[in-house]
This record gives sequence, structure tokens and C-alpha cells, in this order.
Amino acid sequence: MDVFEAIRGRRSIRKFTSQVVSEEMVNVLVEAARMAPTAGNAQAYMLVIVREGERKRRLSEAAFGQGQVQMAFVVFVVCADLKRAMASYGERGCSLYCLQDTAAVTENVLLTAYSLGLGTCWIGAFDETAVKSVINAPVDMRPVVMISIGYPAEMPMPRPRRLPSEFVHNETF
Amino acid sequence: MDVFEAIRGRRSIRKFTSQVVSEEMVNVLVEAARMAPTAGNAQAYMLVIVREGERKRRLSEAAFGQGQVQMAFVVFVVCADLKRAMASYGERGCSLYCLQDTAAVTENVLLTAYSLGLGTCWIGAFDETAVKSVINAPVDMRPVVMISIGYPAEMPMPRPRRLPSEFVHNETF
Repeated sequence: MDVFEAIRGRRSIRKFTSQVVSEEMVNVLVEAARMAPTAGNAQAYMLVIVREGERKRRLSEAAFGQGQVQMAFVVFVVCADLKRAMASYGERGCSLYCLQDTAAVTENVLLTAYSLGLGTCWIGAFDETAVKSVINAPVDMRPVVMISIGYPAEMPMPRPRRLPSEFVHNETF
Repeated sequence: MDVFEAIRGRRSIRKFTSQVVSEEMVNVLVEAARMAPTAGNAQAYMLVIVREGERKRRLSEAAFGQGQVQMAFVVFVVCADLKRAMASYGERGCSLYCLQDTAAVTENVLLTAYSLGLGTCWIGAFDETAVKSVINAPVDMRPVVMISIGYPAEMPMPRPRRLPSEFVHNETF
């Protein structure tokens, strides 16, 4: 699927069928994550891939009951690697670059999943401490995104967006 | 161009030719930015598009002399809109979501540019205060990315990446 078509067509999917997502597809998504640009190529992230029902239920609970986490076939928990970020870039690495790295990873996964016929939802609203506990994360791993992934059971309309004239400035504000 | 092909083929480009990037192409890049997913669809970002030579020179200076900023035909300064982020999500909006929003915007621009035959570089290392001054940014606009864009004058080799076994965990760490 064409890049621009994927960018335009992707939606947040919050209802999934029970259809199995193949290991091959999961591997393609991991490869898309792997190729994301990262600050100074520091790759300051880790992925935890969750498929077990009870663990997804606990992640859903940590995400204030968002049902798509539990309903998804598989959930990617994207963690910022604070140790790696700190070693490469100090405070700016921890508070900015590793958050950008993990977001680029996430966007690559979302677009690739859509091109494979899968639905995804980018989830940022959750209790980080609770998620850390569910995935047994070391102290220097900060979960910042959960991506719920599965075959879509809904086709939402596009959300409204601002016009370019509302967010683009030429030369200066 | 196929999504996955773009994800795999994209490189950071730091040398550009003087070839003009058409307005049509810039508009496609703006549209790719516009379609990025944002937390709660809050679209907590603004874009400043810089083409003037003297202004690019000053941005390059603010980026500690990174030459690709000055050499690029056009530079997108991607700003996190702290006011919008705060209004929607408070502190987590300002310190996380708007940084993720701007990174998703950036990745969409990078992939689309590559599919159009353009080169880009994601720049995160700069003096934010100096950049704010160059683009006359209001106090609540935080420049977090500069994207230098132009026709590539180099074809870098892919940077090494970790193996999936080095960054993927199943179920837990």
C-alpha cells in the first residue's frame, strides 16, 4: 500500500475480531519498528509483546479500563529506555529524544499494520507504574505507548482535522 | 511507494542539491503532517515553514552549526503547542503527548518525503530558545524538531540496528 494512502486511511481502531494475527505479520511490525529513525541512532526503546489474555486484562485495567487493550489480539508495550537515552544524551535524551524515538517506532507500526489490513490504537493514557508491574519492567524502562493490534471490527469515519491555514506559518509566527 | 519500502529505505540526508522543491510537494508534506494521529485528536502542534536563506542560516547556527539546515531547500520547524496540550491533558499533555504528536507528524513527513524522492533529516539537537527567537514563537510554542528537506545529494548506507532479539521481549522483561 502506498505511504500516503496509508497515512490518509489509518484510523484508531477500538473494536477487534478474534481472528488470529500471524507470527509473520507480527514480525513485519517488529521490523517496521526496528527501522524507525532514532536520535543519534541510539535506539532508546524496547518492545514488550503481550498476547496472554490475563496479562492483556491487567494492561486494560492499567489503562483505566480501555477495552481495546483486552480485545486486541496482541499488544505492543513500547518502552523508552531511559538508561540508553541518558548514556547518549543526558537529560534531553530522557525527557525528549527517547519519547520521540518511541513515537516514531509507534507510527511505523501503525502505518505498516494498516497496510497489512490490521487495525491499531495508539494508547497513551495509562498508569505507567501499573503497566511496569504487569510487564515486570526494570526501573529504567518507561512504558510510554501501548499499541493494541488486531483485525478491525469497525470502520470509523475520519476525525476532523484543522485546516493547514490553522497550523502552518510561513517563516515566522 | 509502498509503506514498508519507504520505512526500510528512508535515510537521514545531510547533503542537498539546489533543486527547487515544488509548492505541490510541500503541500503534500503538510497534508501528511495533518493526518498524523495525535492524543485525543488534540493536534497539539504547529508547523513553521522556513525557506529564506538568512533565516535558515540562523536556524543552522541554533542547531550548533549543522549544515544540513542551511543547505536544505526548506525547513519545517515542528512546535509542540503547550497551551493546547495543557488544555486537553495538563502536565502529561505537555511533557509527553505533545512530544509524541510532533514526532508522529515528523515521521509522516519523513516517509512521505522519501516516497516523493526527497531527502530529509530529523534534527533534535538545537538551542530551543534560539530557534524560538528565529521564528518569533510565542511563549507556549516549543520547537522540538527541525526537518531539513530537499533533493538528496548523497545516498548513505543504512545505519546498523539492533536485532529483534535485542529489543523485543515476550509477555514480560
